[in-house]
Amino acid sequence: MNAFPAPVSRGLRTAVLFPPERPLRLEAGGTLSGVRVAYEEYGRPDPERANTVFVCHALTGNSHVARHGSDDLPGWWEEMAGPGRPLDTDHLHVVCANVLGGCAGTTGPWSPGTRGRPLGADFPDITVGDMVAVHRRLLHHLGSPGLRAVVGGSLGGMQALEWLLRHPGDARQFLLVATGARLSADGLAAHAAGRAAIRSDPYFADGRYADEPTARGPVDGLGVARMIAHLTYMSAGSLEAKFGRRHQPSGIADGKAYGPYAVERYLEHQARTFVARFDANSYLRLTAAMDRYDAFARPPAVVPAAARTPEVHLFSFESDRLFTASDTAHLTDRLTTLGVPLTHHRDRTSQAGHDAFLLRVPGYLDAVASALGSPLRTGLPFPVGSRVEG
Amino acid sequence: MNAFPAPVSRGLRTAVLFPPERPLRLEAGGTLSGVRVAYEEYGRPDPERANTVFVCHALTGNSHVARHGSDDLPGWWEEMAGPGRPLDTDHLHVVCANVLGGCAGTTGPWSPGTRGRPLGADFPDITVGDMVAVHRRLLHHLGSPGLRAVVGGSLGGMQALEWLLRHPGDARQFLLVATGARLSADGLAAHAAGRAAIRSDPYFADGRYADEPTARGPVDGLGVARMIAHLTYMSAGSLEAKFGRRHQPSGIADGKAYGPYAVERYLEHQARTFVARFDANSYLRLTAAMDRYDAFARPPAVVPAAARTPEVHLFSFESDRLFTASDTAHLTDRLTTLGVPLTHHRDRTSQAGHDAFLLRVPGYLDAVASALGSPLRTGLPFPVGSRVEG
Repeated sequence: MNAFPAPVSRGLRTAVLFPPERPLRLEAGGTLSGVRVAYEEYGRPDPERANTVFVCHALTGNSHVARHGSDDLPGWWEEMAGPGRPLDTDHLHVVCANVLGGCAGTTGPWSPGTRGRPLGADFPDITVGDMVAVHRRLLHHLGSPGLRAVVGGSLGGMQALEWLLRHPGDARQFLLVATGARLSADGLAAHAAGRAAIRSDPYFADGRYADEPTARGPVDGLGVARMIAHLTYMSAGSLEAKFGRRHQPSGIADGKAYGPYAVERYLEHQARTFVARFDANSYLRLTAAMDRYDAFARPPAVVPAAARTPEVHLFSFESDRLFTASDTAHLTDRLTTLGVPLTHHRDRTSQAGHDAFLLRVPGYLDAVASALGSPLRTGLPFPVGSRVEG
Repeated sequence: MNAFPAPVSRGLRTAVLFPPERPLRLEAGGTLSGVRVAYEEYGRPDPERANTVFVCHALTGNSHVARHGSDDLPGWWEEMAGPGRPLDTDHLHVVCANVLGGCAGTTGPWSPGTRGRPLGADFPDITVGDMVAVHRRLLHHLGSPGLRAVVGGSLGGMQALEWLLRHPGDARQFLLVATGARLSADGLAAHAAGRAAIRSDPYFADGRYADEPTARGPVDGLGVARMIAHLTYMSAGSLEAKFGRRHQPSGIADGKAYGPYAVERYLEHQARTFVARFDANSYLRLTAAMDRYDAFARPPAVVPAAARTPEVHLFSFESDRLFTASDTAHLTDRLTTLGVPLTHHRDRTSQAGHDAFLLRVPGYLDAVASALGSPLRTGLPFPVGSRVEG
């Protein structure tokens, strides 16, 4: 039934949380119980259990941050996590869970409903706060007494920010990467165009495609949504440097309506690989949660007392057009106004755009390592960035 | 049969050019004869017929630059053309024609083929050079001995540039607006995503939708393509200023998958109005022509001799993300290298992005008026920008 399995990794584990007598109360209303959470752990807790770092993944990520060994599949943040990396698994205990509403093992629209078929359009509205609530319950389940750090990029950065604002005592450090307090009109617009593509695909069937005999789903619409989103993850400069106007003949092109450009073939490839691993209803729920997130729309539940104020680091990228300098300035202003001490690391070297946070950007990786006190090993065979999330 | 009529304007005229014995030889191969051209004229030729300005429209424009009188429909460049405007029709004779391959009266994919049904996917590949060839034949048909100026924005600017490079003796002035010598990878990518949306719409039927019983066409896919393109016409700043995260309830939204954002409703509105006036095959042919245009890929046919070198003005906008500062620098460098004297007017005041060229940007409109020697009348009741083209 599950067409969107979590990646095959020997590290994948599952917990079922929120028993019926203590369900998850969703911020937008309603409850969920028996929430299945797919998670992975790297490294080991130290005797004081004070070295746990929770990683929050981005929109289409999963729990597989990095490979568990040489025979494992590559993870989405290989540059960041592993032995000798900034999230140094020789010293830190790293935990990452697929988010609520996702489609990589955690309860989401593809989870079976009462009729045994996927919930699909019946899966409820979720929020960034709900995602954090599930992460926290998982940590409780794992017996964690508190975190060394919460780290997240993009939508994962929103989760880390929400965690900081509502539960600042949970961790000693919060590392917010390539993120903002809310999505700009430009970001909302890109999501809107993607949603229109999904919605107008006849196979979407108002989100009830799993009930259709073919259960094909809106793969064309979802592919176009991915193309649109992918353009917000790159920069004009990186597209120009990587593809320019280079040609790449293709068996698909008919030579008339479709151009012979390598950048077009690249986007088509992105769309094809994405639809094979992602569920359209999950995409709709997670983009909606990202759209609606507005960190400072309500006051922080707990204003951090000076004595226990966590350390907050923000990492941003000048070429990022999803979270621009203007978004970053808004976030730093608001945090500073709240009295949250913040160190802002702004990278001006990478032209990779939003994607830079997943890639090998030495100054940025060094800064994360330094913030976490990880001794970066030199001469590591850095893998070529294997990007599976945006 | 013609579902995409030219705008109802009392100024619309039609010429049938290229008789079978003297067909249009298309740059990409093949010929076309009996080419129908829809055009409009404003103002009158002076006794020497030395005051004619040809306007080249952008991707989805038409011949209706401005209204012919108070009872006429507004045109797409009301800010620019009319009595007392920079293209001052009290003094200048302005001509504009719907481009070859368009769907507003000029021969294009919606034109009937031999079976009486639209050519659709059988319409041949066209180029920017072909568009210029048709414009020039129209001027010959109208008895014009030469032009005061060629003016064009965006794809229209590419036509004006091509005209300059191949036939520099045709006009005293060339005004290139919000354009470049070729589309960047970023621009190609946005077109590619739009094409994918059209192509994957089941009603596209490989471009043969006019042959289908419903002749419905890929209106959903074309709508999504318009949304994507529209985002390249605006800037992040203009989207933020105009919409931000403002809500606008809608009867469409189900409150779950779709956000309540005004910017989403706006894009949906743009899509709806666009598909009612534009043909998908025309969109594919014109974007393909724009994609393939590469002004300096071959040497200019005629290197302008110093004595008859036309005056060239480039108007660009700092907030334009379709033709960026980098694209503009490339164009000015190449023209300068060719020895073409160029005046570059760069607007830094407008946040409107690429669309600025259609809007009321005083410094820019003043500069165009000044280049054309038009005495701008002050106190004109400038209409609210009524944007029908991108």
